[in-house]
Formats: sequence, structure tokens, C-alpha cells
Amino acid sequence: MATTLITGGTVVSSTGRAPADVLVDGETIRAVLAPGSTLLGHDLAASVDRVIDATGRYVIPGGIDAHTHMQLPFGGTFASDTFETGTRAAAWGGTTTIVDFAVQKTGERLQDGLAAWHELAAGECAVDYGFHQIVGGVDDDSLQAMRGLVDEGISSFKLFMAYPGVFYSDDAQILKAMQVSAETGLMTMMHAENGPAIDVIAEQLVAQGKTAPYFHGIARAWQMEEEATHRAIMLANYTRAPLYVVHVSAKQAVQQLAWARDQGQQVFGETCPQYLYLSLEEQLGARGSEWGDFEGAKWVCSTPLRSREEGHQDHMWQALRTNDIQMVSTDHCPFCMKDQKELGLTDFRAIPNGIGSIEHRMDLMYQGVVTGRITLERWVELTSTTPARMFGMYGRKGVIQPGADADIVLYDPNGHTSIGVDETHHMNMDHSAWEGFEIDGHVDTVMARGKVIVDGGEYLGSKGDGRFVKRGLSQYLA
Amino acid sequence: MATTLITGGTVVSSTGRAPADVLVDGETIRAVLAPGSTLLGHDLAASVDRVIDATGRYVIPGGIDAHTHMQLPFGGTFASDTFETGTRAAAWGGTTTIVDFAVQKTGERLQDGLAAWHELAAGECAVDYGFHQIVGGVDDDSLQAMRGLVDEGISSFKLFMAYPGVFYSDDAQILKAMQVSAETGLMTMMHAENGPAIDVIAEQLVAQGKTAPYFHGIARAWQMEEEATHRAIMLANYTRAPLYVVHVSAKQAVQQLAWARDQGQQVFGETCPQYLYLSLEEQLGARGSEWGDFEGAKWVCSTPLRSREEGHQDHMWQALRTNDIQMVSTDHCPFCMKDQKELGLTDFRAIPNGIGSIEHRMDLMYQGVVTGRITLERWVELTSTTPARMFGMYGRKGVIQPGADADIVLYDPNGHTSIGVDETHHMNMDHSAWEGFEIDGHVDTVMARGKVIVDGGEYLGSKGDGRFVKRGLSQYLA
Amino acid sequence: MATTLITGGTVVSSTGRAPADVLVDGETIRAVLAPGSTLLGHDLAASVDRVIDATGRYVIPGGIDAHTHMQLPFGGTFASDTFETGTRAAAWGGTTTIVDFAVQKTGERLQDGLAAWHELAAGECAVDYGFHQIVGGVDDDSLQAMRGLVDEGISSFKLFMAYPGVFYSDDAQILKAMQVSAETGLMTMMHAENGPAIDVIAEQLVAQGKTAPYFHGIARAWQMEEEATHRAIMLANYTRAPLYVVHVSAKQAVQQLAWARDQGQQVFGETCPQYLYLSLEEQLGARGSEWGDFEGAKWVCSTPLRSREEGHQDHMWQALRTNDIQMVSTDHCPFCMKDQKELGLTDFRAIPNGIGSIEHRMDLMYQGVVTGRITLERWVELTSTTPARMFGMYGRKGVIQPGADADIVLYDPNGHTSIGVDETHHMNMDHSAWEGFEIDGHVDTVMARGKVIVDGGEYLGSKGDGRFVKRGLSQYLA
Amino acid sequence: MATTLITGGTVVSSTGRAPADVLVDGETIRAVLAPGSTLLGHDLAASVDRVIDATGRYVIPGGIDAHTHMQLPFGGTFASDTFETGTRAAAWGGTTTIVDFAVQKTGERLQDGLAAWHELAAGECAVDYGFHQIVGGVDDDSLQAMRGLVDEGISSFKLFMAYPGVFYSDDAQILKAMQVSAETGLMTMMHAENGPAIDVIAEQLVAQGKTAPYFHGIARAWQMEEEATHRAIMLANYTRAPLYVVHVSAKQAVQQLAWARDQGQQVFGETCPQYLYLSLEEQLGARGSEWGDFEGAKWVCSTPLRSREEGHQDHMWQALRTNDIQMVSTDHCPFCMKDQKELGLTDFRAIPNGIGSIEHRMDLMYQGVVTGRITLERWVELTSTTPARMFGMYGRKGVIQPGADADIVLYDPNGHTSIGVDETHHMNMDHSAWEGFEIDGHVDTVMARGKVIVDGGEYLGSKGDGRFVKRGLSQYLA
Repeated sequence: MATTLITGGTVVSSTGRAPADVLVDGETIRAVLAPGSTLLGHDLAASVDRVIDATGRYVIPGGIDAHTHMQLPFGGTFASDTFETGTRAAAWGGTTTIVDFAVQKTGERLQDGLAAWHELAAGECAVDYGFHQIVGGVDDDSLQAMRGLVDEGISSFKLFMAYPGVFYSDDAQILKAMQVSAETGLMTMMHAENGPAIDVIAEQLVAQGKTAPYFHGIARAWQMEEEATHRAIMLANYTRAPLYVVHVSAKQAVQQLAWARDQGQQVFGETCPQYLYLSLEEQLGARGSEWGDFEGAKWVCSTPLRSREEGHQDHMWQALRTNDIQMVSTDHCPFCMKDQKELGLTDFRAIPNGIGSIEHRMDLMYQGVVTGRITLERWVELTSTTPARMFGMYGRKGVIQPGADADIVLYDPNGHTSIGVDETHHMNMDHSAWEGFEIDGHVDTVMARGKVIVDGGEYLGSKGDGRFVKRGLSQYLA
Repeated sequence: MATTLITGGTVVSSTGRAPADVLVDGETIRAVLAPGSTLLGHDLAASVDRVIDATGRYVIPGGIDAHTHMQLPFGGTFASDTFETGTRAAAWGGTTTIVDFAVQKTGERLQDGLAAWHELAAGECAVDYGFHQIVGGVDDDSLQAMRGLVDEGISSFKLFMAYPGVFYSDDAQILKAMQVSAETGLMTMMHAENGPAIDVIAEQLVAQGKTAPYFHGIARAWQMEEEATHRAIMLANYTRAPLYVVHVSAKQAVQQLAWARDQGQQVFGETCPQYLYLSLEEQLGARGSEWGDFEGAKWVCSTPLRSREEGHQDHMWQALRTNDIQMVSTDHCPFCMKDQKELGLTDFRAIPNGIGSIEHRMDLMYQGVVTGRITLERWVELTSTTPARMFGMYGRKGVIQPGADADIVLYDPNGHTSIGVDETHHMNMDHSAWEGFEIDGHVDTVMARGKVIVDGGEYLGSKGDGRFVKRGLSQYLA
Repeated sequence: MATTLITGGTVVSSTGRAPADVLVDGETIRAVLAPGSTLLGHDLAASVDRVIDATGRYVIPGGIDAHTHMQLPFGGTFASDTFETGTRAAAWGGTTTIVDFAVQKTGERLQDGLAAWHELAAGECAVDYGFHQIVGGVDDDSLQAMRGLVDEGISSFKLFMAYPGVFYSDDAQILKAMQVSAETGLMTMMHAENGPAIDVIAEQLVAQGKTAPYFHGIARAWQMEEEATHRAIMLANYTRAPLYVVHVSAKQAVQQLAWARDQGQQVFGETCPQYLYLSLEEQLGARGSEWGDFEGAKWVCSTPLRSREEGHQDHMWQALRTNDIQMVSTDHCPFCMKDQKELGLTDFRAIPNGIGSIEHRMDLMYQGVVTGRITLERWVELTSTTPARMFGMYGRKGVIQPGADADIVLYDPNGHTSIGVDETHHMNMDHSAWEGFEIDGHVDTVMARGKVIVDGGEYLGSKGDGRFVKRGLSQYLA
Repeated sequence: MATTLITGGTVVSSTGRAPADVLVDGETIRAVLAPGSTLLGHDLAASVDRVIDATGRYVIPGGIDAHTHMQLPFGGTFASDTFETGTRAAAWGGTTTIVDFAVQKTGERLQDGLAAWHELAAGECAVDYGFHQIVGGVDDDSLQAMRGLVDEGISSFKLFMAYPGVFYSDDAQILKAMQVSAETGLMTMMHAENGPAIDVIAEQLVAQGKTAPYFHGIARAWQMEEEATHRAIMLANYTRAPLYVVHVSAKQAVQQLAWARDQGQQVFGETCPQYLYLSLEEQLGARGSEWGDFEGAKWVCSTPLRSREEGHQDHMWQALRTNDIQMVSTDHCPFCMKDQKELGLTDFRAIPNGIGSIEHRMDLMYQGVVTGRITLERWVELTSTTPARMFGMYGRKGVIQPGADADIVLYDPNGHTSIGVDETHHMNMDHSAWEGFEIDGHVDTVMARGKVIVDGGEYLGSKGDGRFVKRGLSQYLA
């Protein structure tokens, strides 16, 4: 196995930073060492196969994006990134592990859904991948099957309080699934929006001719997210299930999470870059038409973007500091405008929900360091360490320490990244929700399990580099 | 410089644990390595001066006790541990750094107080020590002097809302000192109890003949702590000073901290083992007399022990989990019963306030791991990592990583420690507040800056091993 | 029309008490006068048909019980009081107005349900009665019909978040009905319990052999009430509907109401005497069997009785003082043990839910005055003035003032009432949930629209004395 | 004694409104009657000395202003209204009772202060008056003297957390005084601002040359009010004293009151018209100078006006609806610009604090009815009924009912009142804080204890019409 010595960089963890060299042996980290060419008289640099000079760069554990949807069937189409294209884009952006969602729908066997997703991903991925299990049809069979998930390396499942008729679980189903969660230690992940109520509002808006993408956000009012969040918390309180609320966007939902946590409940929250940077007002735009034009479809996602005037974005950054929100994923769910988003040209309800950000998460969050919103350490914690701990991968992932997978990113704080459409992204999308964002930093080098897959602006990896990660129970619970 | 290889243990950090070897070179950690006798072909064990076998033990960063009072002049006497005896006891208990309090009183120059404490400690200590600065007399001179503290390696100062006529600051003084805190980055530490109100209550109790130690806790009612905590928070809100509330004991005070933190204020809280394990009821005892006898004086400390029936202890453990309380110090302030505590035989107000725990903190908190109150990682975080980050020592202290001081404890989870009076403690006290506590673990070996000072039940260090630690600004703020 | 002068009593209102005489002319109050036999030279007593001496008695507006269920079809049987027997019992207990619930079920026309209830009540009642409308099947037809309710004198409707398959509305239905509420001013009344989740728990308990009445309360956990209360609040927040939560029993639900009210929402809460006096522990009893015996069925109602140990009852009395709960109704829904409650002998789910209290509400709440829980004025406010204002009857009902209906009770604070089974109650029940309660007061005389219907321990009224009250919109909203 | 019949009006109480006639006999109300010329065959109108036609007018209990400061010595001058001029202005504005503050200062006997105020007021007043007792120097003597206050008809006393060196009480003094409050039932009134901290801020502002009136409000930051409010609440929690916080202006202080009340504490709050209508921005004005000019001195009062942008005014109106604030007084404390406010031309600290509003309170609050902020009934409750109940006058004052003092105002909802400087106010001030306010209503007729003192735009009363009101304990506590 090849050995590599990364020298001269600053290793950053979730608690601090220090100058240190990292010795990689094959796929794993062999040692972390104080800088210096010799160790006990031995010249290390001379003993390894390769030396990487990390001078001036941050040496961080590879990013972990715990919420992606490659090839997701949704709204009559499929998310436009395959496991191949999506994980390659991830690699470009400094993310070396994803956790995607295997899907079980009503009437299907959970095991079949999982097997299907294994088949989609196997041999295709640029970086390591795990699965959460979507349980779209809670019944006796799927409840029983859930008990076997931990053995499969799947330690979390997701329910939907939204999307009646598609993934929706009612409260009886949620209660039963949470009982399995409490019993087995599986993390309950929740899409917390009151779907039945939202569907009424959306229908009324469309009936009034309010069909533009902007109304997607109006229909999914903050009260619907706050309510579902509280409901999930209280059902978790009763069942004693650990609860992880995905893609939190409303400040009022954050307040519910804070309240539950203050009382000692095991409740966690994830947000996404779009809820930190973008707002409902993007969809109105300064485009001359009353409600914005169809460009707004780019930013149609659920939960929706929230009003900047109401202060959701500022509150979310605060929640990242107060740890009422524990981590940042992308909810990467890309759809092209052409043939996909356009399905909803005359009715926002038909626009496939999703934004693609997998390539930009590390950069976008680093910009929060630049602007003083978060510390450098918190950046690593939010994007890598906590995702690893939350979803049972820590030790192998999320930290630079001996024995860990050598998933390492060299990040240049003096570099620059312009996010745009044409040349600069690698996601399979014909647009970007992030066009025009400028980042004061750059992903220089990406090593995945010891192999350099991105360096010098080139992609050096291969399809199939990434392997399935069997995850254990959450290591974050206390 | 001597080199040491610690092999076979499990290194525990605030985020996780992993089997790893630690290579110490002189006073610092040179490398952390995956287990295995050779590195790049070199036999490490054969190359070092000494190998320590840590098999079966946790290898943790040495404990940091950020709140001690050696030789403190208080109530007409002095805390019974000198820097020599107190830091030696610390070493026995796995604590390799303390932060004590230099004292400035009204009318004294702050620089003189600091110099006096330097003199007391220099050359006496078994482990490294830093100082917080008590500002007992806020005036133009001391405010000016505070601006120089950071350069002296003193990055925090403490005010008292209690003890009128001794250390007490009124709100005008607090406001001014907090303005300096906000301006310089010095952490404001606060003893948050409404002293003037407490003194009225205490006087009324004594006038009613209620003079037993038990009434110390009655006089210092939870409302007095809650009130002062809120007041400190609001003055910090106005001045934008970072605030650290010491020795929090009332659950209502915790709720105030949680409230402030939920709103994004930089407010932190410390508790002590006594507020987790002991209660006001100890002082009543089952001793036959109506209000307990003078034995209760052992547990006279401020803030006082709280009623178990009211649930303060359980709430405090919960706050450790929810991170509404960030760290555990001892407020080590020992007084003997004879000649010291006895000063208050006929009036609880004359009992010197304080409990000695410096030797037992690591054990007592580890017992919380055993009983499932906290995780192993949180133990390290509460007792070492966060203290280091909170008070500007992280990197040198609080973590096992290359470049850090080699302050390392081997903790045996299969060992046992009986806490008692006679043979088993090393603090200069004629009693123990902790008599009878049994711990399912044991501090086996203590290394301080590369030197093994405790091992095999023997103290191997010397007076003066410990050196002054210049601290930087808090690394915990985000 | 006959004239009556009530002399020598103390008239009590929701704000104070004063010695005053009341002159009744026919069905209404003509004047309230300072005590004294002559007015402007005229001898009043000599000019009226009858003088009632109220010396030593409180003269209060007749009680209004805004939540009763006469003859309600439920659980395969009917509530055991007819409008005739139930309203007569009300009269005996000092209640001169009830608001019962007309029922519309899924698939029925709302107008038909209302008409059916008019038919049941007309000519049968001892005291005046109004109707709330239960909307058990929210659909386009019933939503349209709701818009006509105000004109029918029905200014409030009730939805159920419990009882799937019976009265249950899902969130989509609730949203739509609340939109009508916001538009028309109709008060939305809510049975706030998460029925689908409760049904799962209940089914699981029965599957475990836990079939005793006690488990009714276990199944309907406080989390299920808290959750539904919050959900109703948030849907009301979105729609801007006024919301009135019926039969609140959990302290956590009260906290939700308080929270909503602190933020200015038009949210109200009602509790019942059973939630103030009785507890889950009644159902366990000291009866020798592990889970209590079937006697517990007497206290099976929904929401259920709550644990005294958890402090719900004390909190509820407090909420009456703080006005987080605004009024006290009975949820009178009587079932006999024989043939009715016994339906659930082997399965608590089959026990008809309900407690009969219509006759005892005024007494039970007066006992709260005796014990210092509430003031005399608050008693009148909770039992008469606020119900009248809340449901659009004030001016005619709920106050002793000129022009008001002469619904007047003379209450003797020196009297005594023993509540028991055999002779002393007039409800059509073969048992009492209140057996053994002793009240330090007594309903001496009851006048309903100018006619004395109870006096000297005799019932002097007739079937049909009571007439339908057309109600206006709530007068309590501000 | 003369008899008067007020006919044709709408009598408004705190709970409702109804057409009714009011019969006055001498100084008191003899009867309230349903409209109609005859009673039991007697022609009432023909039997009385005078008939007042109230057609089209609201007949309300005379206003009670529970917070005035006539002739108050403050800041080296005296409030510009004497008891004669101030109470006459009150009468013009529909206020028929005031509660002023007798002053005891440090070193003075409390009895002497009270006697002095009796002397100032006796024979001077246009309307009835009571006294609260300011205790400016809490010591053993004054504490003892407080115990005698109830017998003197003084059922409330006021402490100051502001104004060190003048009226200020420290927490020890507050605790002792509150103990007397709890023991005797005297209401503790609190000026809740952290004076020592405010004085530091003010001094720093002046040192920076920020001397304009605007900086008065900047110095008295909301944190200082919030903090003191919480402190007062917690000291009241400990002592179990009833607490009434005067002139609440910050929304955060309101939140503290709401929090305390939600937990069942007997805590009340008063606001003033200036905190509902005016804002800090008035003092900046559009006057061309950077910080506004000295015109701003008109609005210098303590607590200060708050920023409209921060939403204090809207929150205060909301608190009036939610009853987190129970009543509206004026804190009438008038100073002329010339020779008085001008004392602070070069230093805002020397501007006498106070606004004069006694004449406009009823009108300003009625405008809240017009704009839909409060209901007509709530208007009566906030301005008359609750003040009477809160301060032990209800029954005689605050309600139109038999036996009550005939303090009656006829208010014309079709009238109009322009508030301005020159002709239209009767307060002894050379300016008005309310210039330019237009009110859609008018005080037509004012009767005080049976005597018409204002009618047809003429003042018909005499100096000395008003008498001292001995007050009982608060009737509002429950």
C-alpha cells in the first residue's frame, strides 16, 4: 500500500487547529505528527511514497453530506444527478462521503427498496456512500423490516409528515415507527411539514390563479413547519425516540427544537445552505412581473425558502452558533429547468422540489467563517465531525486521527471560488441556484481513502472509488 | 529530552475514542499513531527511552480545574490548601492544570494583587497553573489595570454580586467592568447571588436563633441566585460582554442561562461536583437534632447545596447533557473543621464557605459515565477540553494531539476508588465532604508535561514541577 | 306580568359584590337598587307581587354550563340524561342556561343535524338552552352550511382531533373550517387530542391485556393533548380563527394556551370540575387489584383524568387564577354503569366516555372559594359571566343588570350540600363520580326568566320552561 | 339631598354595555334601571330634582388615574400642577379620582411625609384623591410606620430601583419592605429601572458630549428596565409580596411580567398613554440637528419613550389586550419648558422627568377603541374599574351600581376633541406632549359624587369638591 505524508498544513478539528503533519498508509491515517522532518531520528519524508505540501492550507476531514437524493423518483421525473455524476460533483466540492436515501413506498417491501438503491449506487460512486432508509409506507411488514436495518449498516430512517399520497405517514404510523426507533436506537429523521394542510392552501392558491413558483413558498407557510416540528417532538417525547428534523428553515421551528432540547429531549436539527443564504424574495426577484417569473422555479424546494424580512436566515445562523441546529447538509435534489422544473410552468405544485448544492456546501459554509458567522472549528464540526457522529461513522469519518479513513481535504483560505453555471460546476444541472456567489477560499486537493481524487483543478478519481459505508448507531446521543 | 511511547490504550477526546499510541518527546506530544510497533519500517518502541503500557486504560488529556482557591483569605482565615498541597492533591486526582484566582480588594492595586499571587504560587506547584483575576474593587485604577491583563496571560476576571463589604461589586461597577470585558475580550466571570438581600435573610434567621449550618442554605435561597444570574445576563446583554457564571447550583439559574443562550448571547455556566451529587438535605441529616448538627458545616459553600426534593441535581445533570452548562470545576476552597469551620459554631455566617474536591473531580465525573448520566467523551469535554477552550489554553492543554503539552492521564475503567478521610486523600483537610463515595474507576498514571508524577500509587513529582500558564482569549466563543 | 323584589342580599358580579335589591318585572330585571324600602318616596316592597328575602345569601346570575351532551349518541348508546332530566338537574344545581351540542356526522347535512337537536330539546327543557354545532364531517356542503349558522343563533362549532371514524377531522378539514371561522366570527371549539396516535396506544395496551378502565387514562397520555392543543393553536394562527379548547386537563396543554395568549392570539380554554378535583389515581383506587377494578369506569372521560402526582390539578387551579383558563363547564355526558359503562367491562375502549356533573358545577366551584383557590367574584366570572360573554349571550345572561333575563340564584354560604348517590342528585345516572364530596354552601333558590323553579328544596318548574337562546358572536374577543 | 335621573344613555361596564337609566340620590347612585319613564307605576323623571338626557352618550364610571404627582419636588423644582390645577384638569378630562404619591425621603419620618401631603391636598382638589406612600428611605422606623398605613387608608407604597441618592432603595431595603407588604397586604409598587447602571451610562454619554434630550432615552436602555423588572419579580417571589410595576414601557419588561403571571405570581403592570402612542423617535424629530433639538425635552420622562422600530408600542397595546398589563395611568408629572425643563439645556440629566397627561388619558385611550386596539368595555376596565379594584376603592369607585359614589362621565362617541396647547388644556403647563392629537370622542359631562362639575364646556365645580379617599386592600388579587 502506498504511503503519503501531508506536511506543513494546519489540521483543523471541531475543537481547535494546530500545525501538524499527517501520515497516510494505504486507505487510512497512520499518524498525526508535530511538524518536523524527522521522527525519532528517522526521516519520514524520505520514507514515504509521496509527500504533499499543504503549506498555507487547512487540512480538514473530508466533508460529509448526510442528506442527498441521487436519481430520486419525484414528481414524475428523477433527480438529475446519478450516483456517478452527483458523487463526482461532491468530490469536486470537498465532500468525501454522502448519505443518500433508499426509498420504500407504500406497498413495497422495505428490503426491496434498499436492495434497489444498493444496485443503483454500487460501482458508480466517486466517494463513499451510506444510506438512510425512507419508510414511505409504515405497516407491520416494514416495521418488522426496520428492526433489521442496523445489521445492514443503516442506522436511520426517514418519515414524511408532508406529501400525502406519496411518502406521507400519519400520526399513527409515526408513533409506531418511533417505537421501533426507541427500541432499536435507529435515528428517526423527519420531514416536518403539515402536508394535508399545505395541500389545502396550495389548492386554494392555484384556484385563485396564483400559480407562479413564488406561491410554493406562500403555500408552505412557517406555521406548517413549526406545527409539524412540535408534533414530531411530542411524539418523540412519548415514545422516547431520538429525533432528527431535516432541512429546518423556519425560525419558529428552530425555537421548537431549542425548547425541546432545553428540556433534555434527544432532538436534533439540520439546515441547508439555501436556508442560510437564500430567501423567498429571490423568487419574486426584480423581474417586473407581479409575482416573479418562472426563474423562481430554480429555488423551489421543501421546506421552502423563507422571507428575509422575517429574519429566518439570521436566526438560522444564530442557531448554528447556539447549537440548536447541529449540522448542515444539502438536501441535494437537483432537477433541470428544461423538461423537469418546467413541468410546473402553469402550476407550482408540479415543479419538482429540490435544489442542487452538493458541490458548494463546503465552500458556502466556509464563507460563513470568512464573514464571522461561525468559527473555523465550527465549520469542520457542522460539515464533517457532527455528521459523522450523528450518523454512526465517527472514527472512520469526520476526524483526522490515526485509524481513520484517509478522507482529507486541503482547503486554501487564500484561494477563491466563483460559483456559476457554465464551466464551474459538475452537477448534472442546466442552471445553478447559486449563480454569482463568490467564495473566499478554495478546495485544492481531495483525498478519499488515501487516493487523491481531485488536485490541481483536475479530477483524478474513477467511477467506483466510493464504497458503501456500514454505519453504526448515532454516537452523538448523550 | 526523554521520549516516551504510550501504547495499547484508548485515546479519548471530546468527540470520540480510538485505539492509539502516543509518542511524547520531552514536554510535548510528538505524535499520535495507530497502534502497531513499527512506523514506516521503524520500530518505535525500540527507539524511545520508555514505553508505558496503557492496555485497558483510557488515555485522556489531563484534567483542568478552572476554579480553585489555594490559600484564599476568607472569613478571617485562609483556605487550608497551599499551592503546594492543593496542586499535589490535584495531581493525585488526575488534574494537571488549575486556574486559581488572584485577588484584588478594594483600595489595593490590581497589579499588586496579581503579583502577590504569583509569589505565592511560584515554585510551589505540582502541576501547571494559571490565574483568573478577582476584581474586588472596581474603580478607575483597576479598570485601567484590567486592560493590561491579557498581556500578562490573564484572560478572565471575576466579580462578585455577593459578599457586600468584601468582594462585592454593585451594578454600576459591574457595568463598567463588563465594558472592559467587551472591549478587550476578557471573559467576565460572575459569582451570581444577590448578596445584599441574602445578608438580610441571614441576619433575620440568626435573630430567630436559626444559627445551624443548615440555615446557610436557607438564607441563600434559589431566588437570590436566579435573580443575580438574570441581572448579570442583562448587563452582559447591554455591554456585549462574554459572561461565565461560576458554580451554578439552582435549576432556575440554569433556565436563565438556557434562555440567554437560546437568544444567542455569549453566556456560559460552570457547575461543581457538589451540585450534582450533594444536597441541602445532607446538612439536615438523620442526626436527631431538629436542624442537623454542626457536621453540616462540612457542606457550607456558596452558592449553597440545593434541595434534592426540588430537583436541582437532576436538572443539573440534564444541563450537562444539553450543554446549557458547559464545564465542571470544583470551586476547591478547603477549610478544616477544627479552628476554621468551627468559627461559625454559633452562627452559620461565620463558617468559612467552601468545599474541597480538587482531588476527586475526575473520579466523581467519571462515575457519571458509569451511571449513564454522561458519555465518556462528554466526561473529557467537561473536565478538560472545554476548560482549555473556555480559558484560552486549548492546543497546549485539553487535547491529546501533536504539539500539545504531554499532560496525560491513564484512567482505568476497571479500577476502583474509595473516597474517604484518613489515608485516601491528599488535600490538607481534616475531613471530607465526599466521605463514603465509591468510584468505579481509578487514576492510574499521571504525566504532566512529559514527566510521570503519579504512578503505581506513588507520587513521583516535585514541588515546582508546575509552571505558570499564560493564557490567551477564550477559544470557545463563536 | 308579575313583579318580584329580591331584598337584603349581596349581589355578586365578576368584579365585585355589594348589598343591593333586585327588582324583577316579568321575565327580566327591571332595576338594581341600593337597599332600602322606599325609592323616591315610593314603597317598592308594597308595590310588587312578591318579595323574596335574600338576607345572608349571595344573589348571583344563574349559572351557564356551556358544554353539555344530553342524549348524545356515543359508543353505541346514548347519554343517559334527556334534555328534560338533564336540564332539571341543572336547575337544581343553580344552572339556568346550558349550551348543548347539535351533531352533524359525516355524510349528514349540517342543517339536518341541527334540526334534529332542536326537535329533541324543544318543549323539554327546564332552563334555557342554546346549541353549539358539532361538525363531524367537514366537506364543501357543511362548510357552506356553517356560514348560515350565525343567523340561526349558533355562533360556535366544534371539531374533534380525536375519535377517528366518528367525529374526527383531519388537518385539512380543520384548516378549511377555521377559515370559515375567521371569516364569519364563529368560534372554533376544539376537542384537542391526537386521536390516531391514541388509538394505536390503546390497541397496544389491550393487546397486552391491559383492559381495565385505568388504562383509558394511560392511553390518552398528556403528550397527546399537548400536541393537539399546539396544532390547533398553530392552525388558528395561520387562519386567524378564534379558538376555544374544550375540557383542558393536562398542565402542558395549559402551558401551550398561555404561550399562545402571551403572543396575542385569540385562544381560550375551558376546564371542568373533574380536572380540578379528580385524578387518574381514583381509577386505581385502593381496591386490591393491580390496576383498580371496574369501578374506575365511573371516571372514564376524555380528555382523561390526569395524575395528581404530576401536578395537573394544582396547575389547573392556578390557570383559573391567571386566566390562562377562562371558564368552567361540565362536559356533562352521563352514562349509567349498568348497560352503558359496562359495555367496556373487558375492554376500556368500549366504555362510553363521560362524567355527569351538571348538577354540581356551581357547588364544586364554590368550594374553591371556600378553600381560597378562587375569589367569590371569580366564581361568578368562571361559571356565568365569561360563559355568557364567550358565547354571545352577555347582557341577557351572565349578569345581574337591568334588561337582563331574570336568571338569578340565591346561594347560601352558610348552607351545606352533601353530594351523594341516592336521594341527592337528579341526574339520570345510577352512580355519581362525585359521591362523598361535601360543599360548604347551598343553592337555595333558583329563578329562571323571572319564575322561581327551585326553592325550599322543591322543584317548582315545568318541562318546557326553558327556551332556545339565539346567540350572537363572542363578546369576549378583544 | 338632590336627586338626578340620567336617562337614555348606554351604561358601559368592564364586561358589557346596556341601555340603562341611572338614579342618583345625593352623592351616591341609588339605582340602575331599565329605560322607561315609570317604575312600578311611578313616574321617576317627575320625582327627581333633575333629569339629564344622556341619549347617544356612553355613561361610564368616572376615570381613575392611579399615578399622579402634583407639586412633586423633583430635580430642584416642583411639578407645575398643584392639587388645585391638576385635579381640575383631571375633571375636564373625565377623571374623577386620582391617587397621588405622598413622599417620604431618607431621614424623614414617613408619617410626616404623609401629613405634609394631606396638607397640600386638603381643600384644594376638584375631584376625590387618595395617596400611595413613596418610601424613599427604608429603615426600621419607616418599616414600622408602614404597618400603620392601611389604617390610614393608604394601601400601597412605592419604591424606586432608580434615582440613587434620591428615592433609591437597594435590594436589602426592597426585601425588607416587601416583607411588610406580604405581611400587611399593602401593594408594593415599583419603579423598575436599574438606576446605578443607568447613571453610569448617562455619565458616559454626557462625557462624550451627548447631552441632548434624546440621550435620556438612550441612557435608560430597555435592558435596564427589563433587568429591574425581573429583579423585583424575583424578590416578590421570595417574599410573597404582591407587586405592581409602574409605567412599564419596554416590551421585554412586559415579557417578564407575562412570565411571572404565567407561573401564578401576583404581579401586575401599569402603562401610560405615552408608551402607547409616543416613541423615542419623537425626540429625534425631523428637526435638522443630528440628535434632535431641545424640543425633545417635552418627552423626557422615566421610564423613557421607546423606539417604535423595536415595536414596543405595538407590543404594549397587545399586552393591554392579553391583560399582561392591567391598567393605564398617566404618571402625570408636568414641568414647564421655561425655567423647568430648561434646567437641562446643556445636560439631559438635569431635565426634570415627566409628561403631563392627566387631562387626556380618557380621550387617548378611547381613541384606542376607535382604532380597534381595545374594546369599549376594556376601555372602562383599564381606566376605571381595574384601578378601583387594584387599589381598594371598588364598589365606591370604578363601577356604576347602586351604592357607588355618583362619579359618572357622559362620553360622546360622536364628539371630537383636538388636543393642543393654547385654549384647550387646563393643566398648568406651557406646552403639551400631545399637541396635534385628534380624538374621535368627547367628554361631555362629568359628575363627581353627584355634583355636575363639567358640562357644556364649562367648569361648574369648586376647589375642595374633592375629598380624601380611604382605600382598602387591593380587591384585584385572587
